[in-house]
Amino acid sequence: MKACILSVGTEILMGSILNTNTKYLSEKLNEYGVSVLYHCSVGDNPERLKEVFSYYLKDVDIVITTGGLGPTQDDLTKEVIAEVMGCPLKRDEEIYHKIKTFFDSIGRPMTENNAKQANVPVGGLALQNDMGTAPGIYIGKDNKHVFLLPGPPREMQHLFELHVGPMIAEEKNQVINSRYIKLFGMGESSVEDKLLPLIDGQSNPTIATYAKQGEIEVRVTAGGETLDETEKLLLPVVNEIKSLFGTVIFSTEGESLAEVVGKLLIQKGLTISLAESCTGGLLAGALTDVSGISATLQTGFVTYSNEAKMSLLGVSEDTLTAHGAVSEETAIEMVRGLKERTEADVAVSITGIAGPGGGSKEKPVGLVYIGIAFGDTYEAKKFNFHGNRDRVRNFSVLSALDMVRKKLI
Amino acid sequence: MKACILSVGTEILMGSILNTNTKYLSEKLNEYGVSVLYHCSVGDNPERLKEVFSYYLKDVDIVITTGGLGPTQDDLTKEVIAEVMGCPLKRDEEIYHKIKTFFDSIGRPMTENNAKQANVPVGGLALQNDMGTAPGIYIGKDNKHVFLLPGPPREMQHLFELHVGPMIAEEKNQVINSRYIKLFGMGESSVEDKLLPLIDGQSNPTIATYAKQGEIEVRVTAGGETLDETEKLLLPVVNEIKSLFGTVIFSTEGESLAEVVGKLLIQKGLTISLAESCTGGLLAGALTDVSGISATLQTGFVTYSNEAKMSLLGVSEDTLTAHGAVSEETAIEMVRGLKERTEADVAVSITGIAGPGGGSKEKPVGLVYIGIAFGDTYEAKKFNFHGNRDRVRNFSVLSALDMVRKKLI
Repeated sequence: MKACILSVGTEILMGSILNTNTKYLSEKLNEYGVSVLYHCSVGDNPERLKEVFSYYLKDVDIVITTGGLGPTQDDLTKEVIAEVMGCPLKRDEEIYHKIKTFFDSIGRPMTENNAKQANVPVGGLALQNDMGTAPGIYIGKDNKHVFLLPGPPREMQHLFELHVGPMIAEEKNQVINSRYIKLFGMGESSVEDKLLPLIDGQSNPTIATYAKQGEIEVRVTAGGETLDETEKLLLPVVNEIKSLFGTVIFSTEGESLAEVVGKLLIQKGLTISLAESCTGGLLAGALTDVSGISATLQTGFVTYSNEAKMSLLGVSEDTLTAHGAVSEETAIEMVRGLKERTEADVAVSITGIAGPGGGSKEKPVGLVYIGIAFGDTYEAKKFNFHGNRDRVRNFSVLSALDMVRKKLI
Repeated sequence: MKACILSVGTEILMGSILNTNTKYLSEKLNEYGVSVLYHCSVGDNPERLKEVFSYYLKDVDIVITTGGLGPTQDDLTKEVIAEVMGCPLKRDEEIYHKIKTFFDSIGRPMTENNAKQANVPVGGLALQNDMGTAPGIYIGKDNKHVFLLPGPPREMQHLFELHVGPMIAEEKNQVINSRYIKLFGMGESSVEDKLLPLIDGQSNPTIATYAKQGEIEVRVTAGGETLDETEKLLLPVVNEIKSLFGTVIFSTEGESLAEVVGKLLIQKGLTISLAESCTGGLLAGALTDVSGISATLQTGFVTYSNEAKMSLLGVSEDTLTAHGAVSEETAIEMVRGLKERTEADVAVSITGIAGPGGGSKEKPVGLVYIGIAFGDTYEAKKFNFHGNRDRVRNFSVLSALDMVRKKLI
């Protein structure tokens, strides 16, 4: 089955609100074995809504609209869609009564606008909404399934879970099952080049790659009659990808690098300490986003200044003078001092030039040294990152996490 | 002028990524006086992309596409749009050379897929992209303006600022001038209510409000023949907004709260130290995003564990036992110990329950204490934030920054 998600509301086109409904519905529809072919947003304009709805309806089996079911004059979704579907509106007395009772209870008069929320297309179905006054609407006709849902995400999600999902499950002819394999340390195009023979040979499962802020995601999706069948289709392909990329893969469950490292530390009962210069706390911030990390994260130091590097980590003034704060020697002394002082199992130091200022010919923006201490070994790795300050800092954090991961696997 | 924003990428339709580009572009286009009539998303499918693009092109003056300009086989936007517009592709030797140089510099081979990024439609224009290998593309034909931008938000925004915005302004023969007034500590609807009389009476400048991860932005935009003319239109409106909101306004230049605080510290030559528990380095990360902060940021501690709070900050075990790690007393002892040990001019401590776990009836998720020491005073403020872990951590960081700001203005 194929679907289109149609969002209605001028506030979306003005950029006043971020449309999160389409992401939620897309995820859910894919879970229910429905291919989403289009997202579309239109304003509170009946002519354009009518035209766009008709345009997409001919191409898909399911249209889900969000928004435009409220009580104001702008809210026209139901009226317009019912007209296009050839279903006149008729007052549902039960819903009318429910809305009336609500207004009586809050001591406010029920207006004509409020009353129109009780209208239901003839041949359609009202989908009960326990979280607001506007019910959802279902119209099934000529093998097309149209669901009208309210715009507020909480109400919309509630109606999907309660009505739309189960109704689609009844119609469903296929389960779609995806695996998200995540890699770090290769560019997206190199990953795809390596995958090409596999991609070309496959129609089910399908394979696609995505770059996500430095992490590469390979999505493998299989369709079948049962979950079991899709699992059987996925397994050999996932295994082949695993053997192609080896330890460049950090997750086959779609987790972030920070989550993977956090979980490894927790599982192994290891403590970690961090000393950050150019990343200024972002590595600690990423690790502390992992729930349950508190037992393993000993201490994080943000040692931005030379003074802090000396007083907190014991980096020698001689080293800083001879080699500079951004050097292999300083990274090593930082991580050595950090490990000795905090007695953590793993210690990580980051020192570099994030830019935009501070670069030179010998030490350009993007030059970063990452030190790691584990067991009795101390080492530092040199990186040359490209891009702006955000990107240099982000890649420094990810590279440090990946160095820790490789020590722990 | 009327516009359609067309997002290309199967990952959007799968719900794998949240489409934030349409919100950004809608905001910007409205600022430039362009009415956005449609958003649309299609997958990496040439037939559907062709059909949908042609469908919308007839209704609007401007189409901006995002995504599908990368080096992979899925990336087909340029090829498809060039075909519909009747402009064959031709390799641009300068861009080809630039991409080749980039791959040489990072020691990776340039593949055929990378090379196709150097193709430009005949009669079109490559829009230089300093943040990635894929240039944007402009095709102007038959009074239609088509801009193809890359999908990654950072690159897309860069290309809009550098090329698309100025080209639209030129086409409209109008200077567009905006002021971004930023506020913290009021809800968006309260801000809007207070602005309503001003909004209702204005057509030039126009006023719009946006909620941006806790910070509220009020955009005031004037159009005119000269920059001078727009400045004269902006001034009285900006002044009226300033007098309406007073110190709730932290910037009239669109800066982030972290930038404002960073600049205040630098200007005043004050040093700052941080001790973070639930925010785990995010406050330090936000402050170190400000260029030039290194002289003022003394030390940042991530003291997640009670042990770290005791050994690094001198919080007493008695206090932790009697009042708990999340308490006014602990926040005060953290900040007192921090200030004494680091001798910074300003010291800030954050301790709270970010969730999802760790909450209780007395101390629910979202309870956060922020301590601040400045001069001879030590104080702590209690907050009850709502929402998930990300939101609690983000509001903790912003509230701490705002407390520092209010001490320094």
